[in-house]
This record gives sequence, C-alpha cells and structure tokens, in this order.
Amino acid sequence: MTQVNQVIQVGIVGGTGYTGVELLRLLSGHANVEVKVITSRAEAGKPVDALFPNLRGHYSLAFSEPDTQSLLECDVVFFATPHGVAQGMMAELIGGGARVIDLSADFRLQDIATWEHWYGQAHGCPELVAQAVYGLPEINREKIQQAQLIACPGCYPTSVLLGLIPLMENQLVNPSQLIASCASGSSGAGRQAKIDNLLAEASDSYKAYAVSGHRHLPEIEQGLHSMQSKDEAKARLTFVPHLLPAIRGMHSTLYAQLTTTVEDLQAIYEARYENEAFVDVLPVGQFPQTRSVRGSNVCRISIQQPQDRDTVVVMSVIDNLTKGASGQGIQNMNIMFGFDEREGLRSPALLP
Amino acid sequence: MTQVNQVIQVGIVGGTGYTGVELLRLLSGHANVEVKVITSRAEAGKPVDALFPNLRGHYSLAFSEPDTQSLLECDVVFFATPHGVAQGMMAELIGGGARVIDLSADFRLQDIATWEHWYGQAHGCPELVAQAVYGLPEINREKIQQAQLIACPGCYPTSVLLGLIPLMENQLVNPSQLIASCASGSSGAGRQAKIDNLLAEASDSYKAYAVSGHRHLPEIEQGLHSMQSKDEAKARLTFVPHLLPAIRGMHSTLYAQLTTTVEDLQAIYEARYENEAFVDVLPVGQFPQTRSVRGSNVCRISIQQPQDRDTVVVMSVIDNLTKGASGQGIQNMNIMFGFDEREGLRSPALLP
Amino acid sequence: MTQVNQVIQVGIVGGTGYTGVELLRLLSGHANVEVKVITSRAEAGKPVDALFPNLRGHYSLAFSEPDTQSLLECDVVFFATPHGVAQGMMAELIGGGARVIDLSADFRLQDIATWEHWYGQAHGCPELVAQAVYGLPEINREKIQQAQLIACPGCYPTSVLLGLIPLMENQLVNPSQLIASCASGSSGAGRQAKIDNLLAEASDSYKAYAVSGHRHLPEIEQGLHSMQSKDEAKARLTFVPHLLPAIRGMHSTLYAQLTTTVEDLQAIYEARYENEAFVDVLPVGQFPQTRSVRGSNVCRISIQQPQDRDTVVVMSVIDNLTKGASGQGIQNMNIMFGFDEREGLRSPALLP
Amino acid sequence: MTQVNQVIQVGIVGGTGYTGVELLRLLSGHANVEVKVITSRAEAGKPVDALFPNLRGHYSLAFSEPDTQSLLECDVVFFATPHGVAQGMMAELIGGGARVIDLSADFRLQDIATWEHWYGQAHGCPELVAQAVYGLPEINREKIQQAQLIACPGCYPTSVLLGLIPLMENQLVNPSQLIASCASGSSGAGRQAKIDNLLAEASDSYKAYAVSGHRHLPEIEQGLHSMQSKDEAKARLTFVPHLLPAIRGMHSTLYAQLTTTVEDLQAIYEARYENEAFVDVLPVGQFPQTRSVRGSNVCRISIQQPQDRDTVVVMSVIDNLTKGASGQGIQNMNIMFGFDEREGLRSPALLP
Repeated sequence: MTQVNQVIQVGIVGGTGYTGVELLRLLSGHANVEVKVITSRAEAGKPVDALFPNLRGHYSLAFSEPDTQSLLECDVVFFATPHGVAQGMMAELIGGGARVIDLSADFRLQDIATWEHWYGQAHGCPELVAQAVYGLPEINREKIQQAQLIACPGCYPTSVLLGLIPLMENQLVNPSQLIASCASGSSGAGRQAKIDNLLAEASDSYKAYAVSGHRHLPEIEQGLHSMQSKDEAKARLTFVPHLLPAIRGMHSTLYAQLTTTVEDLQAIYEARYENEAFVDVLPVGQFPQTRSVRGSNVCRISIQQPQDRDTVVVMSVIDNLTKGASGQGIQNMNIMFGFDEREGLRSPALLP
Repeated sequence: MTQVNQVIQVGIVGGTGYTGVELLRLLSGHANVEVKVITSRAEAGKPVDALFPNLRGHYSLAFSEPDTQSLLECDVVFFATPHGVAQGMMAELIGGGARVIDLSADFRLQDIATWEHWYGQAHGCPELVAQAVYGLPEINREKIQQAQLIACPGCYPTSVLLGLIPLMENQLVNPSQLIASCASGSSGAGRQAKIDNLLAEASDSYKAYAVSGHRHLPEIEQGLHSMQSKDEAKARLTFVPHLLPAIRGMHSTLYAQLTTTVEDLQAIYEARYENEAFVDVLPVGQFPQTRSVRGSNVCRISIQQPQDRDTVVVMSVIDNLTKGASGQGIQNMNIMFGFDEREGLRSPALLP
Repeated sequence: MTQVNQVIQVGIVGGTGYTGVELLRLLSGHANVEVKVITSRAEAGKPVDALFPNLRGHYSLAFSEPDTQSLLECDVVFFATPHGVAQGMMAELIGGGARVIDLSADFRLQDIATWEHWYGQAHGCPELVAQAVYGLPEINREKIQQAQLIACPGCYPTSVLLGLIPLMENQLVNPSQLIASCASGSSGAGRQAKIDNLLAEASDSYKAYAVSGHRHLPEIEQGLHSMQSKDEAKARLTFVPHLLPAIRGMHSTLYAQLTTTVEDLQAIYEARYENEAFVDVLPVGQFPQTRSVRGSNVCRISIQQPQDRDTVVVMSVIDNLTKGASGQGIQNMNIMFGFDEREGLRSPALLP
Repeated sequence: MTQVNQVIQVGIVGGTGYTGVELLRLLSGHANVEVKVITSRAEAGKPVDALFPNLRGHYSLAFSEPDTQSLLECDVVFFATPHGVAQGMMAELIGGGARVIDLSADFRLQDIATWEHWYGQAHGCPELVAQAVYGLPEINREKIQQAQLIACPGCYPTSVLLGLIPLMENQLVNPSQLIASCASGSSGAGRQAKIDNLLAEASDSYKAYAVSGHRHLPEIEQGLHSMQSKDEAKARLTFVPHLLPAIRGMHSTLYAQLTTTVEDLQAIYEARYENEAFVDVLPVGQFPQTRSVRGSNVCRISIQQPQDRDTVVVMSVIDNLTKGASGQGIQNMNIMFGFDEREGLRSPALLP
C-alpha cells in the first residue's frame, strides 16, 4: 500500500509550456515528490531555470530529450503537451506499467469519432481511450484512485461542469437550453508565438472567439451526459468562450432554465461540495473574482436567481493553469498515490 | 432652418467625469461647435486642461460654477452628471427654451415608479419625463430631430438593444428567455475614488457584479417592450454585467431562442443597419473586439447560430464612453441641429 | 508652389505593421491626402480593413504587391517596413523623382560603418545616405521642406533628443555623463509573433532590455553631436530601454550633470519650444503621463532639479507610434508639401 | 534558546491593507506561526476572509479592535499600518516586552529631525528610535537576531540598497553621483481609494512622481551612508520613482560612475550575495523581470557596463509587497526566532 510519507519520482513530458512551468512551480513545494525528468525536444540540455526565471534556486534539473525508458523509471508521468503527442507515447508507457496523468486533450473524449471530428486528425491510440479516467475528482474520485491513465479535464470543462453539477444531478433545469458564457486569461492560449496574443493586440480589449464551435464543447457535453438519467433529454450547451486581457483566470457565467421551484439553491450547492477541498461555494450575494483563485487550485462558485425569474445564473471561477490544468493534475496524483489531496496545493491565491 | 455650416454654442454641466472629458475630446474636432461653458462645483476656476492633460492646447476654458443663465445662452446643454442632478435643473432649462442632452439616467425611464424603485429616490422632475426622447438614433431618429430633451441611453442598453433590434423587430426569438452577458471596461464605473476600481484590485481579474439587478435592466426591458407588438409575451431579460480589466470597451454577448427557422440572419442584420453610419455588421465568421471601437462611435455586431441549434448568439461591442455615452450624445446633437450625423465622430478607433 | 488645399496621393510600402495602420488611421482624417497604394507581399489582395477592423468604413483599399511604378505615381511614399527594405527600393524611387519618408532605420545614421556595425549587415544604398534629412522638425524644419528623402527618427531618439535639446544647445550639462532611462509600450516591438511580447509574458511585468547596446544609441548620440560645438567633449549617453506592460507610450527619464548654475530651466525649455506645435512643456511640478499623449503627436516635457542638487531630471513622453513614428512622418510630409503642420494630427490624446 | 519547531503566536496591527493581506497569505504556510490577533478599527468583527476572498479556508480569524493587552500575549507583533500609527503604541508594547516588526516608516530614520521634516509631523516616540534595528538582513542580520524592535525597510530602499551594496562597500563608484530610476507596481500606493490609482487612470500608462523628493530618499541615503567610510564624500542619490501599470513588482535601474577599473563586477556581486537566500545575481546578459519575483521574497540583480564606459548599470527587482514589505518582515521574524530564514518564503514566484 502507498505510504503517505513516501517520495515518488515524477516525469514531465513537454515542460516548456505554461502547464509545464505551473507543474514545476507547484511540485517544488510538494512533500512527496521529486521531479526526476522533464523533456523537451526543442530545449534539451537547457536548465529549466534558464527558461523560467521564477524557478531559479528551486530546480537544478535540465530539459532532456523524450525517452521512454527514463520516463518508465518514474512513478508517474505527466503530459504537458499539445494534443496529439501523448497518443504517440501512451501505449509504450502504459504497457510498461507507468501511471500517467495527461493534461492534454488526447484521452478526454470517450467517443473516438467525436475526438477525430473536433481535433481534425486520426486518433493515435484508440485502444487506450476506454480505460482513461476523466480526472475530475469531484465526480470521479474513486475511479481516479485506481486509474493507470488519467485524462485531465480541460479548463473550460472544469469550470463549467463544477458550476452545473448540482443543477444536473438534481435535474433542476432544462438540459437542452444550457448556456455557458466563459472568459479566459491569455495564458490559456499557451506559450506560443501568435500575433493575436501579443500584449499590443490582446491587452485593453475583449472578444469572443470560436463561437461556431470550440473543442471543449463536446468534452463538456460528454460530462453533462454522464450526469443525466436515461429518460432525460440529452444536455445541449451553447458555449461561447471569450478572451480576457489578463494573464490567468477563467470565469464561467452559466445560464439555465429552472424547471421546478427550488427553495434554496444555495443549500443544494453547499451540500454538494461540503467535503470538497477545492470547491468553495461563496456566501449569498458575493460573486467570485478570478484574482481570488490566482495561482490556487480552488474553484469558487456563486448562484443567483435574478428577479426571482426562471433563469438561474451560476458563476464559477478557476485559475486556468491550476484547477484548470496542472493543479488538478497534481490533485489527481495525490488521489492516485494516497497523499493528502491538498498536498502541494495549499497556498492561498496571490491577491492583490 | 438650421444651417449646416453654423457654429453652435455648447454648455456642459458636470465636466469632471469621464463622459465630460470625452465630450471635450470629441467636440474639439467638431466643425460646428464651440464649447462655451463647462461647469463643476468642485473644480470651479480650474482650467479644464489642468485636470485633463490630453486637452492641453485644445481648450482655454475653465470650469465654472453651475449657472442657469449662462447655460441658457448656449444652443444646447449636455448633462454629464451622476443621476439626480439633471432633474434639479431641468425645469428651468427646458422652461427657458434650452435644448438638452442628458447623458445621465434621469429621464430614461418613462415609468416614474420604476425609476424611483431602481434609483432609490423620488424623481425630481416627473413632469418632463413624458416629453424626453430616448436618444437611440437607430430607433428614434425622427423624434430626436424635434426633441427639446434627449435622454441619452446607458452604455449597456445601447450595446444590448442594438444587438437585439433585428431579432425583436422581426419577432424571431422567444422574448421571455433573453440573456445578456455583458462586460464593461473600468471607465464605466466613473472617475470616482473607489477601492474596488483601483488598478491593484481590478487589473488582471474579472468578475460579475450587480447580478441580482442592475439599473440598466429596466431601461433595456423598456427598450425591448417598445419594439414588441401587443400580442407578444413581454420581453424579459436576464442581464449579467461583468467588469473587464480594461479602460474602455463594452462587449455584449446576447443569447436568444429562435422560434422559427431563419434562412439568413446575417442578411437581416445587414439590411436593418444598411443606412446606419455607426452600426457595422461584421462579415460572417468575424467577431468584434472592443479595441476595434476604442474611442470611436461605432457599434460592431456579429451573429452566430452555433451548431445550427436553436440558440442564436449576437455579439455587440461599443466604446462605453463614446457610443455608450458622449459620442452618442454628439450624434443626437448632430441630428437635432441638422449637421452631418458623423461630424466630430469620424476618427477611426485607436488600434493598437 | 505647393497649394495648401491640394490633395496629394500617398503610397505606403509595408502596411501590415503598427506604423502602417497608424499611418492609415491618421491619414484618414487628413484633408490633403488620398492614400492610393499600400503594399504588402504577404497580404496582397486583402482589404486593409480585413486586417485592421478599426479601419472598416474608412478605406476601400486593398494591399498590393510592391511595385515601383505605382509608387512613382504617388506624390510621396512612406516606408513602414523593417530596416533593410527601404535600402533596396530607394535608388529607383529617388531616381524616379519620388519624395520619400522612411520610417525605418535605413537612412538615419550618416556614418555608414556605424550603421553596418549596429545593424549587422551591409548597407544596401550608401550613395543616398548623405542626402537623407533626419526628420526631426524641431531641429531640421528648413531642410525638411526641401528634402527628397526623409529619414524619420526612431521613437527613443525622438523622445530623448527633444528632452535634451535645450540643455545641449545651451551647453548646460556635462555631455559625457548623460543618462537616458527609457520605457516603451509593447507596440514598439512591432506586430510580430514573438513569445516575449505575448500578453501572458509581458503584462503585469517590467524589465530592462538591450542594456549592453540598443540600435537607437548611435542614432541618439549622432543627434547629440549635431548640437554640440566643436570644442566640447563629445556627448556620451548611457541608454537603458525598458519594456512597459502597456500598448502605446514612451517615457524617457533623462539625467544630466549641470555644469553651471541655471536660474530658470523652465524658462529655457519654454522659450525653446514656444513655437513648436507638438512639444508641450508642462507647468512646474506637473509630470507627464504617457496616456496624456496616447494616439497624439505631442511630446510633453517636464524639468526638475531635485533637492537643488547638480543633477537635472528631464521627463519626456510621446506615443511611440505617433510622434515616435507615423505621426512624425506625417508632420514631415506636412512640412514638405507646405500644408499646415498640424493637419491630420489635431485630435487630442485618448484619455482615459 | 528558541526551538526550531516551536510555534509562536503572531499579532498584526492594521490588517486591512496590502501588507496585511500579504502577511496573512505568507504566514498561512509558515510551520512555526499561528496568527492570533489581527486588528482593524474600521473592520472590527469582520472575518478576514470576507475582506480578502483568497484567504477563504485559510483563516477563521476576524479583525478586532486594537488592544495592547492581547497584542502583548503574542510572541511578535507586526505593524502593517500607515506611518504615525506604530509610534503611538510602541512604548507600551516595547515596555511590555513585546518583540515588534514595524513595516511602516515610523522607526526607519535614525535622525528624528529628518523624519519630522519628510513626514511633516512630530515624531510620536523618539525615545525608541535609537534601539530600532533597520531590518535589512543582508546588512544587519546579527543585530536583527537580538532586536526587540525592527524597522522594516521601505520597498524602494530595499531594492536600491541591495543593488548598490557591493559597489558601495567596495568603494567602486563616485558616491555623489548616484542615480536610482525606479518603477513600482500600483499596490505600492496601498489599498486606498484615490482617483490617481484607478485602473481607468493608471492602466496602460506610465509616469514619474514625487520627483522633487520622495520620503524614501532620506532612508536610502541613510543606508548608503552606513556603508561608507568616514573619509568618503557623503553619498548623494538622485531618486526618481515611477508608477507602473502593474499590480506588483518593483524595478530599480541604478546608474553610478565607476572611479576605478573593475575587472569583474559580476564576480564581486556573486561573492557578496553567495550566502544570501533571497538575493539572486543573474548570469551575465540576463536582465531581471518583475514577474520573476511576483509573490516571492527574492531580489534578482543584474550588472552591466554598457559600451565598456564608466557608467555601471545595476538592475534590481523585488515584489514590493514581499521582499519590499511583508516577506522581508517574515524574514526578520525568522532570524529573530531562530527559524530557518526561508520558512514561509519558499514558494517560487507566480509565472506566468
């Protein structure tokens, strides 16, 4: 059995992006972890702190070429790669007995045709999709404990699903008219050189994007369907993501039509998340700010029923890089290895 | 009859806020205007360019104590004051024959009880409410020409109404399930010393506010009702404003349920706004950015029907200080005095 | 002789960057200009307003392939290109009789070896360097009137030189210990996809760069030397540029050692710039903010002598894209063609 | 003797500002600390997490009225108050045996007349000034261990002094021509409602302020003098602070005239700070970014000698709220109580 005070060895594939540096930042304070390997083809040989100056003094590690053997020597391997990469290495790693936490989209959709439609390429490892566990602890904690392969949720799906779970599980709303109006900080676009994400383009501005269809839509709908009973109409979501002039932070404003009179929505939310370390239902009348979770793994949620009409409004904020990616990956790891679920994730958000 | 090349004298009441400085900025380039009076109790005697350094070299004017007589000597008087102020001076001004453009909320709601409910005070001039014309040129241009008293629309109402007009006028959507998820730059909160609007509080963050009820809600619903036929269910809007970490800019994302199959929403929008100088329907697939209207009087609109489902999404952006306030006020003035509607409002937005 | 109300035809080479769109923004309101040609190899055939949505409704022009013949049909040609491009086309254009305003660095340095050292390549058109006029109107207005080829100053040189001119011309300071601590908005880095300039990298942060040597250093020193008498020690500048988390704006804080007791520095500055439309010496005790010149062609300057010690501090702000590039180019054009120097450049800065 | 694993009780006077919430954020992860009391007259009775939502789940504490008796029951008392407050309570606390870490300016200046001149009021507790230890561990670590009263340095002094120590201690530069061109994030102005610090005023802009004299100037010069030998000319600094459009972060660019040929400045800096946990001398050619210390207690420093001329440039960054205030206060506490100096201060900076 896993020992709570053990130290496990961690490998990270693709550590040069924002989810990579966020893993390193959080893991530097994790009592049970030693980061052993971090790979990057482009930066192989370069010390991680030469790329990420905030890590100076915290790591003596350098990026290395991806190498299955050295990854197999780790207790757990994180993928912090663009979609398509994990698929190519997964069979060998899983076959070699590795436990893997994939932060990318490669194993999130159970329906392979849907994945191929939205990602525009053939799936590189369809045979392992069925065994991947969707790593949202608030609905899958027990499966995560036993999982060998975790498909860590996307940032929008995390934020939207946590906001809708109590409504969906209790069948309080019309599932075919759900709306998610979401906004993400610019780090969600990744550490990639694109004109659209320059400070001179994206700062002091705001816009919707991917309105005709974002890849997180089928992922959210899959999650919603998993919470429904068979006799309900299948959940359908209108999902509009927007780009915030901010570094981190994701805010989802969710709209749904109540199909029944609910006495105390607040109490329903509080009860559902009572034992969740990382979901915080705010007191009535307080609304969540993205800065209140900056750098932390917490999701804060508010519920309102404006003018006592039929439309319920749920607001849900996360840090897209933490609860929306690397922090949630570590939370999954903690569950898998029997550590305290909060280990490495205890620091309050950076405010101001 | 008004001469196109005449020069009129303009008075501004309450010029120390953001709508005041925006009026001065835009009017400095208006061929038919001389700003004669600008009042401020707090700053009386101070040159306007000592408060607003961008105006150095453009005005030799100083703030003066509010004084009805000097305002009555102007051809038109703008109120750039918080609500409640215009009500106190309006009877005297209107009685004295002044034409008035009120940028505040004082005369926007035709139902006085509703005004008093939302603004939490008795209305100071109920007898003039009926003759106030709601200054949204895209629906009221002819009335504006003749009006003596213009109630200039709020920023959210401008952005939301312009986005919904083609849907409402054509009765294409369910009027009882309208949703407006809006975001405003920080200048919308005014030039007031509040901790919540400090850069250290509001920058790099995002939040909803006034979710239980914002004063612009009854104003928007009044506008929607005015477009409805009598046999329709009365329009009801769920309105959630959010605070952007940006100086200027307002983005409304509007969601409505189509009640009929519409062949070409784009064509309907383009036709409706074909002759409007300040409404720009973007080509299919382009989404508006707030920076594309920064400092300009234009409203840019996109329409999408994601996944070909029943929910239509409309995106509408304005500069909250320009088309959302002072620019629209000047547009009203141009209509009232027979000037080219675009005079003083021709500069492209500042991008980047 | 040039007619003041004539309309000239303008060509722009390389219009897809920030100086290109800034030229288009400003020229759209210029009474004497029609933009006839705008070239871009990469975007040939694309309407300019498809790239720059703020220009929708202002131009029906499309980008075209660079073509000397069509440029020669213009009255003036602007280069809004990276360094190295203008050199390749200049001989043909100048030979064909064109008047050219080059916003790039190609003809700014009179010493060709110095140019080649700092720009790391052979100069492509050394024979025309001597006839290029350095387009800083505040020191070269008369030469600009007659010039066929203008080398428009860099943004840092404009801001630093305007701040130092009164000190240098009056020989008030030790020329060998000049310091320029400057900060530029992110648009100064151009509309290029670079990771360092992403919002997620550059926002909410600040850093010095190019401390060991920036290409604007020799340009500034050349300008300083041109103001010196022969018997003085040659001016030497320590120049440290910094990157601001802002879109536009440049602030230079200049430090110099007074070599003589000066009764009234303020008066010296005010006298020097009394007749300059675009240099504004602020009243004593006011310090310039970059936002006070956002989108305008003005340079605002303050002078302080802290604690009455020997070090004088000069603060100078410009908009790096306007007085620091395209606005100054238009100011040069106005001088060359006998237009009012302020034409097209009259709008106040956008504040807030 | 102090036990390393002991838990001490901490009191905080004035916890509603940014240094207060930063103390709480950092102390929540400190193994040896329990925060027992936090006072605020204005917010007495309110839970701290109602004011600072990032602290939800971390503290059950509420603000209380300031009360000497309950503070005297603490092992150490922090003052996170504006200047003038600590002076009024200090005699009673020190007399009662408390150990005090004052983050305010009250006891920083050893010359009382100087304090009274710069702060414009009589000093309320001159009798304790002499025994106050200036809490910059890099020069005063041994005195801090024994101190009962710590005057924690200001943010600008911390950043400037750490940058200049190696030059001053080794007498490498002309002490009468020192220049500090500094920039601070907006949180340095405190959590106070001032128009100048609104996002709509301070964002996307940059300016110098307090150029004629900032209160940190005498504090920095006092620190410089303490490093000088008696026969040197007394250090004189030209200090120009600027306001950054950023929440946190302070960048000092320091200019000094070398009076001697120095072979290897880099080596001198590295040797001086070799054993300092919180001073990081960057490799040659790397320049510090404020984001690289966001939320961390580290000061990162670079040295350059541009063009091999006489002027040395030092760049020094800190987080103004951490090493510039609360983090440094905790570092002092760790030294005073014999804890690991890094306890509670180990998290890497938040990047991106």
